Amino acid sequence: MQLSELSERSGVSLPSIKYYLREGLLQPGMSVSARKAEYDEEHLHRLRLIRALLTVGGMSVARARDVLAAAHDPAFGRHERLGVAQYLLPPHVTPPPPGTAADEVWRARRAEAFALLRDDLGWLIHDNAPALDALTEALIALDSLGYPAPTAFLRHYATSVHPIAEADLEVLDAHPAIDEAIEAVVVYTVLYEPVLLALRRLAQEDVSARQHR
Amino acid sequence: MQLSELSERSGVSLPSIKYYLREGLLQPGMSVSARKAEYDEEHLHRLRLIRALLTVGGMSVARARDVLAAAHDPAFGRHERLGVAQYLLPPHVTPPPPGTAADEVWRARRAEAFALLRDDLGWLIHDNAPALDALTEALIALDSLGYPAPTAFLRHYATSVHPIAEADLEVLDAHPAIDEAIEAVVVYTVLYEPVLLALRRLAQEDVSARQHR
Repeated sequence: MQLSELSERSGVSLPSIKYYLREGLLQPGMSVSARKAEYDEEHLHRLRLIRALLTVGGMSVARARDVLAAAHDPAFGRHERLGVAQYLLPPHVTPPPPGTAADEVWRARRAEAFALLRDDLGWLIHDNAPALDALTEALIALDSLGYPAPTAFLRHYATSVHPIAEADLEVLDAHPAIDEAIEAVVVYTVLYEPVLLALRRLAQEDVSARQHR
Repeated sequence: MQLSELSERSGVSLPSIKYYLREGLLQPGMSVSARKAEYDEEHLHRLRLIRALLTVGGMSVARARDVLAAAHDPAFGRHERLGVAQYLLPPHVTPPPPGTAADEVWRARRAEAFALLRDDLGWLIHDNAPALDALTEALIALDSLGYPAPTAFLRHYATSVHPIAEADLEVLDAHPAIDEAIEAVVVYTVLYEPVLLALRRLAQEDVSARQHR
Protein backbone atom coordinates (compact mmCIF):
# COMPACT_ATOMS: atom_id res chain seq x y z
CA MET A 1 0.00 0.00 0.00
CA GLN A 2 1.04 3.62 -0.40
CA LEU A 3 1.63 6.17 2.35
CA SER A 4 -1.89 7.61 2.06
CA GLU A 5 -3.49 4.21 2.55
CA LEU A 6 -1.16 3.42 5.45
CA SER A 7 -2.32 6.65 7.06
CA GLU A 8 -5.97 5.85 6.43
CA ARG A 9 -5.81 2.29 7.72
CA SER A 10 -3.71 3.12 10.78
CA GLY A 11 -5.57 6.30 11.68
CA VAL A 12 -2.17 8.02 12.04
CA SER A 13 -1.84 11.33 10.17
CA LEU A 14 0.54 11.62 7.22
CA PRO A 15 2.79 14.21 8.92
CA SER A 16 3.11 11.88 11.95
CA ILE A 17 4.03 8.90 9.78
CA LYS A 18 6.64 11.00 7.93
CA TYR A 19 8.02 12.11 11.28
CA TYR A 20 8.30 8.52 12.51
CA LEU A 21 10.09 7.58 9.26
CA ARG A 22 12.54 10.49 9.63
CA GLU A 23 13.20 9.62 13.28
CA GLY A 24 13.82 5.99 12.44
CA LEU A 25 10.91 4.67 14.50
CA LEU A 26 9.13 3.29 11.43
CA GLN A 27 11.14 1.15 9.03
CA PRO A 28 11.31 2.59 5.45
CA GLY A 29 8.96 1.16 2.83
CA MET A 30 10.15 -0.75 -0.21
CA SER A 31 11.10 1.76 -2.95
CA VAL A 32 9.15 1.22 -6.13
CA SER A 33 10.26 4.44 -7.85
CA ALA A 34 12.35 7.49 -6.99
CA ARG A 35 9.45 9.12 -5.14
CA LYS A 36 7.26 6.19 -4.14
CA ALA A 37 7.51 3.40 -1.60
CA GLU A 38 5.31 0.45 -0.75
CA TYR A 39 4.21 -0.33 2.80
CA ASP A 40 2.75 -3.55 4.16
CA GLU A 41 1.06 -5.11 7.19
CA GLU A 42 4.36 -5.00 9.11
CA HIS A 43 4.25 -1.22 8.90
CA LEU A 44 0.69 -1.18 10.17
CA HIS A 45 1.65 -3.27 13.20
CA ARG A 46 4.71 -1.15 13.87
CA LEU A 47 2.65 2.06 13.73
CA ARG A 48 0.29 0.61 16.31
CA LEU A 49 3.22 -0.16 18.58
CA ILE A 50 4.79 3.29 18.06
CA ARG A 51 1.52 4.96 19.07
CA ALA A 52 1.31 2.74 22.16
CA LEU A 53 4.86 3.65 23.21
CA LEU A 54 4.40 7.38 22.67
CA THR A 55 0.84 7.94 23.84
CA VAL A 56 -0.04 5.23 26.37
CA GLY A 57 3.57 4.76 27.44
CA GLY A 58 4.36 8.48 27.50
CA MET A 59 7.85 7.77 26.11
CA SER A 60 10.09 10.26 24.36
CA VAL A 61 10.95 9.48 20.72
CA ALA A 62 14.50 8.60 21.82
CA ARG A 63 13.24 6.04 24.36
CA ALA A 64 10.74 4.57 21.92
CA ARG A 65 13.59 4.17 19.41
CA ASP A 66 15.63 2.27 22.03
CA VAL A 67 12.70 -0.05 22.73
CA LEU A 68 12.24 -0.77 19.02
CA ALA A 69 15.98 -1.30 18.50
CA ALA A 70 16.10 -3.80 21.36
CA ALA A 71 12.94 -5.50 20.10
CA HIS A 72 14.71 -6.51 16.90
CA ASP A 73 18.24 -7.00 18.19
CA PRO A 74 19.06 -10.71 17.82
CA ALA A 75 21.44 -10.41 20.82
CA PHE A 76 18.43 -10.12 23.12
CA GLY A 77 16.05 -12.84 24.25
CA ARG A 78 12.36 -12.26 24.82
CA HIS A 79 12.78 -11.49 28.54
CA GLU A 80 15.35 -8.77 27.81
CA ARG A 81 13.31 -7.29 24.94
CA LEU A 82 10.22 -6.96 27.11
CA GLY A 83 12.39 -5.77 30.00
CA VAL A 84 13.82 -2.87 27.99
CA ALA A 85 10.26 -1.75 27.20
CA GLN A 86 9.27 -1.81 30.86
CA TYR A 87 12.50 -0.14 32.04
CA LEU A 88 12.02 2.77 29.62
CA LEU A 89 8.47 3.55 30.74
CA PRO A 90 8.08 6.55 33.04
CA PRO A 91 8.48 7.43 35.86
CA HIS A 92 12.24 7.98 35.72
CA VAL A 93 13.46 9.01 39.11
CA THR A 94 16.78 10.86 39.35
CA PRO A 95 18.88 9.82 42.36
CA PRO A 96 20.67 12.54 44.37
CA PRO A 97 24.15 13.58 43.16
CA PRO A 98 26.93 11.22 44.36
CA GLY A 99 28.84 12.22 47.48
CA THR A 100 26.02 14.26 49.05
CA ALA A 101 24.35 13.44 52.36
CA ALA A 102 21.14 12.71 50.43
CA ASP A 103 23.08 10.24 48.32
CA GLU A 104 24.17 8.32 51.39
CA VAL A 105 20.59 8.06 52.65
CA TRP A 106 19.50 7.06 49.15
CA ARG A 107 22.04 4.25 48.81
CA ALA A 108 21.25 2.84 52.25
CA ARG A 109 17.47 2.82 51.64
CA ARG A 110 17.87 1.37 48.16
CA ALA A 111 20.23 -1.39 49.32
CA GLU A 112 17.77 -2.28 52.09
CA ALA A 113 14.84 -2.53 49.67
CA PHE A 114 16.90 -4.55 47.20
CA ALA A 115 18.02 -6.95 49.93
CA LEU A 116 14.42 -7.47 51.05
CA LEU A 117 13.24 -8.33 47.54
CA ARG A 118 16.30 -10.14 46.22
CA ASP A 119 17.66 -11.99 49.27
CA ASP A 120 14.69 -12.27 51.57
CA LEU A 121 11.94 -12.90 48.99
CA GLY A 122 14.26 -14.35 46.33
CA TRP A 123 13.01 -12.16 43.49
CA LEU A 124 15.09 -12.35 40.31
CA ILE A 125 15.54 -8.63 39.73
CA HIS A 126 18.43 -6.45 38.57
CA ASP A 127 20.08 -3.89 40.79
CA ASN A 128 19.64 -1.29 38.01
CA ALA A 129 15.84 -1.68 37.72
CA PRO A 130 14.31 1.83 37.47
CA ALA A 131 11.40 0.68 39.65
CA LEU A 132 13.92 0.29 42.50
CA ASP A 133 14.63 4.01 42.21
CA ALA A 134 10.92 4.84 42.27
CA LEU A 135 10.53 2.59 45.32
CA THR A 136 13.50 4.23 47.06
CA GLU A 137 12.14 7.72 46.43
CA ALA A 138 8.77 6.79 47.95
CA LEU A 139 10.37 5.14 51.00
CA ILE A 140 12.52 8.21 51.65
CA ALA A 141 9.44 10.45 51.37
CA LEU A 142 7.73 8.25 53.98
CA ASP A 143 10.80 8.46 56.26
CA SER A 144 10.90 12.24 56.00
CA LEU A 145 7.25 12.55 57.05
CA GLY A 146 7.79 10.38 60.10
CA TYR A 147 6.13 7.28 58.62
CA PRO A 148 9.06 4.93 57.96
CA ALA A 149 7.86 1.76 56.22
CA PRO A 150 8.44 -1.29 58.45
CA THR A 151 10.11 -4.23 56.67
CA ALA A 152 7.24 -6.58 57.51
CA PHE A 153 4.80 -4.11 55.97
CA LEU A 154 6.80 -3.87 52.75
CA ARG A 155 7.15 -7.64 52.58
CA HIS A 156 3.37 -7.93 52.89
CA TYR A 157 2.92 -5.44 50.06
CA ALA A 158 5.42 -7.30 47.89
CA THR A 159 3.95 -10.76 48.41
CA SER A 160 0.41 -9.45 47.83
CA VAL A 161 1.34 -7.80 44.55
CA HIS A 162 3.21 -10.81 43.17
CA PRO A 163 0.08 -12.74 42.03
CA ILE A 164 -0.94 -9.62 40.12
CA ALA A 165 2.37 -9.67 38.23
CA GLU A 166 1.85 -13.37 37.51
CA ALA A 167 -1.51 -12.59 35.89
CA ASP A 168 0.07 -9.71 33.94
CA LEU A 169 2.77 -11.98 32.54
CA GLU A 170 0.32 -14.73 31.64
CA VAL A 171 -1.39 -12.32 29.28
CA LEU A 172 1.85 -11.92 27.32
CA ASP A 173 1.90 -15.61 26.41
CA ALA A 174 -1.07 -14.89 24.14
CA HIS A 175 1.22 -12.58 22.09
CA PRO A 176 4.09 -14.61 20.63
CA ALA A 177 5.00 -11.88 18.08
CA ILE A 178 7.50 -9.55 19.77
CA ASP A 179 5.98 -6.26 18.54
CA GLU A 180 2.59 -7.30 19.86
CA ALA A 181 4.08 -8.52 23.15
CA ILE A 182 5.87 -5.20 23.67
CA GLU A 183 2.65 -3.33 22.94
CA ALA A 184 0.92 -5.51 25.53
CA VAL A 185 3.70 -4.83 28.08
CA VAL A 186 3.19 -1.10 27.65
CA VAL A 187 -0.60 -1.22 27.71
CA TYR A 188 -0.79 -3.59 30.68
CA THR A 189 1.94 -1.93 32.72
CA VAL A 190 0.57 1.57 32.25
CA LEU A 191 -3.19 1.16 32.03
CA TYR A 192 -3.57 -1.28 34.89
CA GLU A 193 -1.82 1.12 37.25
CA PRO A 194 -4.95 3.27 37.76
CA VAL A 195 -6.98 0.06 37.98
CA LEU A 196 -4.76 -1.22 40.79
CA LEU A 197 -4.78 2.08 42.68
CA ALA A 198 -8.56 2.46 42.37
CA LEU A 199 -9.14 -1.10 43.57
CA ARG A 200 -6.87 -0.51 46.57
CA ARG A 201 -8.93 2.52 47.62
CA LEU A 202 -12.18 0.60 47.19
CA ALA A 203 -10.77 -2.32 49.20
CA GLN A 204 -9.78 0.16 51.93
CA GLU A 205 -13.37 1.39 52.02
CA ASP A 206 -14.59 -2.18 52.35
CA VAL A 207 -12.18 -3.03 55.19
CA SER A 208 -13.06 0.18 57.04
CA ALA A 209 -16.81 -0.37 56.60
CA ARG A 210 -16.50 -3.89 58.06
CA GLN A 211 -14.56 -2.59 61.06
CA HIS A 212 -17.14 0.05 61.88
CA ARG A 213 -20.48 -1.54 61.20
CA MET B 1 2.50 30.23 72.47
CA GLN B 2 2.40 33.18 70.08
CA LEU B 3 2.15 33.09 66.31
CA SER B 4 5.91 33.44 65.84
CA GLU B 5 6.61 30.42 68.06
CA LEU B 6 3.88 28.39 66.33
CA SER B 7 5.60 29.14 63.03
CA GLU B 8 9.01 28.22 64.38
CA ARG B 9 7.91 24.96 65.98
CA SER B 10 5.76 23.84 63.05
CA GLY B 11 8.21 24.92 60.36
CA VAL B 12 5.29 26.60 58.55
CA SER B 13 5.94 30.22 57.50
CA LEU B 14 4.00 33.05 59.15
CA PRO B 15 2.24 34.11 55.90
CA SER B 16 1.10 30.49 55.38
CA ILE B 17 -0.27 30.25 58.91
CA LYS B 18 -2.12 33.56 58.47
CA TYR B 19 -3.53 32.28 55.19
CA TYR B 20 -4.77 29.08 56.84
CA LEU B 21 -6.40 31.16 59.61
CA ARG B 22 -8.12 33.41 57.05
CA GLU B 23 -9.33 30.42 55.03
CA GLY B 24 -10.71 28.73 58.12
CA LEU B 25 -8.39 25.71 57.90
CA LEU B 26 -6.70 26.54 61.20
CA GLN B 27 -8.92 27.25 64.19
CA PRO B 28 -8.38 30.76 65.68
CA GLY B 29 -6.17 31.10 68.77
CA MET B 30 -7.47 32.26 72.14
CA SER B 31 -7.53 36.07 72.21
CA VAL B 32 -5.44 37.49 75.04
CA SER B 33 -5.57 41.11 73.86
CA ALA B 34 -6.97 43.04 70.91
CA ARG B 35 -3.97 42.16 68.73
CA LYS B 36 -2.63 38.98 70.30
CA ALA B 37 -3.80 35.40 70.46
CA GLU B 38 -2.43 32.29 72.14
CA TYR B 39 -1.92 29.01 70.29
CA ASP B 40 -1.41 25.54 71.74
CA GLU B 41 -0.44 21.96 70.86
CA GLU B 42 -3.80 21.47 69.12
CA HIS B 43 -2.79 24.14 66.62
CA LEU B 44 0.55 22.42 66.04
CA HIS B 45 -1.19 19.11 65.29
CA ARG B 46 -3.70 20.79 63.04
CA LEU B 47 -0.95 22.54 61.09
CA ARG B 48 0.75 19.20 60.51
CA LEU B 49 -2.52 17.78 59.18
CA ILE B 50 -3.15 20.83 56.96
CA ARG B 51 0.30 20.45 55.40
CA ALA B 52 -0.33 16.76 54.81
CA LEU B 53 -3.67 17.46 53.07
CA LEU B 54 -2.28 20.24 50.87
CA THR B 55 1.18 18.93 50.01
CA VAL B 56 1.15 15.13 50.22
CA GLY B 57 -2.58 14.92 49.44
CA GLY B 58 -2.46 17.55 46.70
CA MET B 59 -5.86 18.89 47.85
CA SER B 60 -7.26 22.33 47.11
CA VAL B 61 -7.91 24.57 50.13
CA ALA B 62 -11.66 24.05 49.62
CA ARG B 63 -11.31 20.25 49.76
CA ALA B 64 -8.99 20.40 52.77
CA ARG B 65 -11.59 22.57 54.52
CA ASP B 66 -14.27 19.95 53.82
CA VAL B 67 -12.05 17.18 55.26
CA LEU B 68 -11.41 19.20 58.42
CA ALA B 69 -15.10 20.11 58.78
CA ALA B 70 -16.09 16.45 58.51
CA ALA B 71 -13.33 15.45 60.93
CA HIS B 72 -14.95 17.45 63.70
CA ASP B 73 -18.60 17.05 62.78
CA PRO B 74 -20.25 15.02 65.56
CA ALA B 75 -22.78 13.68 63.03
CA PHE B 76 -20.03 11.53 61.49
CA GLY B 77 -18.48 8.36 62.86
CA ARG B 78 -14.82 7.47 62.40
CA HIS B 79 -15.43 5.47 59.19
CA GLU B 80 -17.19 8.43 57.55
CA ARG B 81 -14.57 10.93 58.74
CA LEU B 82 -11.74 8.89 57.27
CA GLY B 83 -13.86 8.18 54.19
CA VAL B 84 -14.33 11.88 53.42
CA ALA B 85 -10.55 12.33 53.54
CA GLN B 86 -9.99 9.47 51.10
CA TYR B 87 -12.82 10.53 48.78
CA LEU B 88 -11.42 14.06 48.48
CA LEU B 89 -7.91 12.96 47.49
CA PRO B 90 -7.07 13.24 43.80
CA PRO B 91 -7.52 11.93 41.16
CA HIS B 92 -11.00 13.30 40.51
CA VAL B 93 -12.28 11.90 37.26
CA THR B 94 -15.08 13.76 35.44
CA PRO B 95 -17.66 11.44 33.85
CA PRO B 96 -18.91 12.28 30.34
CA PRO B 97 -21.92 14.65 30.10
CA PRO B 98 -25.29 12.88 30.64
CA GLY B 99 -27.21 11.83 27.57
CA THR B 100 -24.16 11.41 25.31
CA ALA B 101 -23.07 8.13 23.74
CA ALA B 102 -19.95 8.23 25.94
CA ASP B 103 -22.21 8.54 28.97
CA GLU B 104 -24.03 5.35 28.04
CA VAL B 105 -20.75 3.43 27.70
CA TRP B 106 -19.59 4.97 30.97
CA ARG B 107 -22.66 3.94 32.93
CA ALA B 108 -22.59 0.40 31.59
CA ARG B 109 -18.89 -0.08 32.41
CA ARG B 110 -19.26 1.49 35.84
CA ALA B 111 -22.31 -0.62 36.73
CA GLU B 112 -20.44 -3.75 35.65
CA ALA B 113 -17.41 -2.91 37.82
CA PHE B 114 -19.62 -2.03 40.77
CA ALA B 115 -21.57 -5.30 40.44
CA LEU B 116 -18.33 -7.29 40.38
CA LEU B 117 -17.04 -5.68 43.57
CA ARG B 118 -20.29 -5.23 45.47
CA ASP B 119 -22.36 -8.28 44.49
CA ASP B 120 -19.78 -10.80 43.36
CA LEU B 121 -17.02 -10.07 45.91
CA GLY B 122 -19.34 -8.59 48.55
CA TRP B 123 -17.32 -5.43 49.13
CA LEU B 124 -19.06 -2.84 51.30
CA ILE B 125 -18.54 0.17 49.04
CA HIS B 126 -20.69 3.12 48.03
CA ASP B 127 -21.90 3.67 44.50
CA ASN B 128 -20.58 7.25 44.66
CA ALA B 129 -16.97 6.30 45.51
CA PRO B 130 -14.63 8.46 43.37
CA ALA B 131 -12.32 5.45 42.94
CA LEU B 132 -15.14 3.79 40.96
CA ASP B 133 -14.90 6.66 38.46
CA ALA B 134 -11.13 6.29 38.21
CA LEU B 135 -11.59 2.54 37.70
CA THR B 136 -14.24 3.11 35.02
CA GLU B 137 -12.03 5.57 33.14
CA ALA B 138 -9.15 3.08 33.08
CA LEU B 139 -11.41 0.22 31.94
CA ILE B 140 -12.82 2.31 29.10
CA ALA B 141 -9.27 3.27 28.02
CA LEU B 142 -8.41 -0.44 27.91
CA ASP B 143 -11.55 -1.18 25.88
CA SER B 144 -10.72 1.56 23.38
CA LEU B 145 -7.23 0.15 22.78
CA GLY B 146 -8.58 -3.31 22.12
CA TYR B 147 -7.57 -4.75 25.49
CA PRO B 148 -10.90 -5.15 27.32
CA ALA B 149 -10.30 -6.33 30.89
CA PRO B 150 -11.81 -9.80 31.42
CA THR B 151 -13.95 -10.10 34.57
CA ALA B 152 -11.81 -12.95 35.93
CA PHE B 153 -8.71 -10.81 35.52
CA LEU B 154 -10.27 -7.90 37.41
CA ARG B 155 -11.50 -10.24 40.12
CA HIS B 156 -7.94 -11.54 40.51
CA TYR B 157 -6.62 -7.98 40.80
CA ALA B 158 -9.27 -7.11 43.38
CA THR B 159 -8.73 -10.14 45.59
CA SER B 160 -4.94 -9.71 45.44
CA VAL B 161 -5.11 -6.07 46.48
CA HIS B 162 -7.50 -6.68 49.39
CA PRO B 163 -4.83 -7.89 51.87
CA ILE B 164 -2.89 -4.71 51.12
CA ALA B 165 -5.91 -2.63 52.14
CA GLU B 166 -6.23 -4.70 55.30
CA ALA B 167 -2.63 -3.86 56.25
CA ASP B 168 -3.27 -0.19 55.43
CA LEU B 169 -6.27 -0.07 57.74
CA GLU B 170 -4.47 -1.86 60.55
CA VAL B 171 -2.00 1.00 60.69
CA LEU B 172 -4.84 3.43 61.46
CA ASP B 173 -5.68 1.62 64.69
CA ALA B 174 -2.42 3.00 66.08
CA HIS B 175 -3.88 6.51 65.67
CA PRO B 176 -6.99 6.87 67.84
CA ALA B 177 -6.95 10.71 67.60
CA ILE B 178 -8.98 11.67 64.53
CA ASP B 179 -6.60 14.40 63.23
CA GLU B 180 -3.71 11.95 63.38
CA ALA B 181 -5.76 9.18 61.77
CA ILE B 182 -6.76 11.47 58.89
CA GLU B 183 -3.13 12.46 58.40
CA ALA B 184 -2.24 8.76 58.29
CA VAL B 185 -5.02 8.09 55.73
CA VAL B 186 -3.60 10.76 53.46
CA VAL B 187 0.02 9.73 53.88
CA TYR B 188 -0.66 6.00 53.48
CA THR B 189 -3.09 6.34 50.61
CA VAL B 190 -0.90 8.69 48.60
CA LEU B 191 2.66 7.66 49.44
CA TYR B 192 2.16 3.93 49.18
CA GLU B 193 0.80 4.30 45.66
CA PRO B 194 4.29 4.63 44.09
CA VAL B 195 5.46 1.83 46.40
CA LEU B 196 2.72 -0.46 45.11
CA LEU B 197 3.35 0.41 41.46
CA ALA B 198 7.12 -0.03 41.78
CA LEU B 199 6.71 -3.39 43.51
CA ARG B 200 4.37 -4.55 40.75
CA ARG B 201 6.97 -3.77 38.09
CA LEU B 202 9.69 -5.53 40.08
CA ALA B 203 7.43 -8.55 40.58
CA GLN B 204 6.79 -8.58 36.82
CA GLU B 205 10.55 -8.68 36.25
CA ASP B 206 10.84 -11.58 38.66
CA VAL B 207 8.03 -13.57 37.01
CA SER B 208 9.45 -12.95 33.53
CA ALA B 209 12.99 -13.91 34.61
CA ARG B 210 11.70 -17.20 36.06
CA GLN B 211 9.82 -18.00 32.81
CA HIS B 212 12.87 -17.43 30.63
CA ARG B 213 15.78 -18.83 32.55
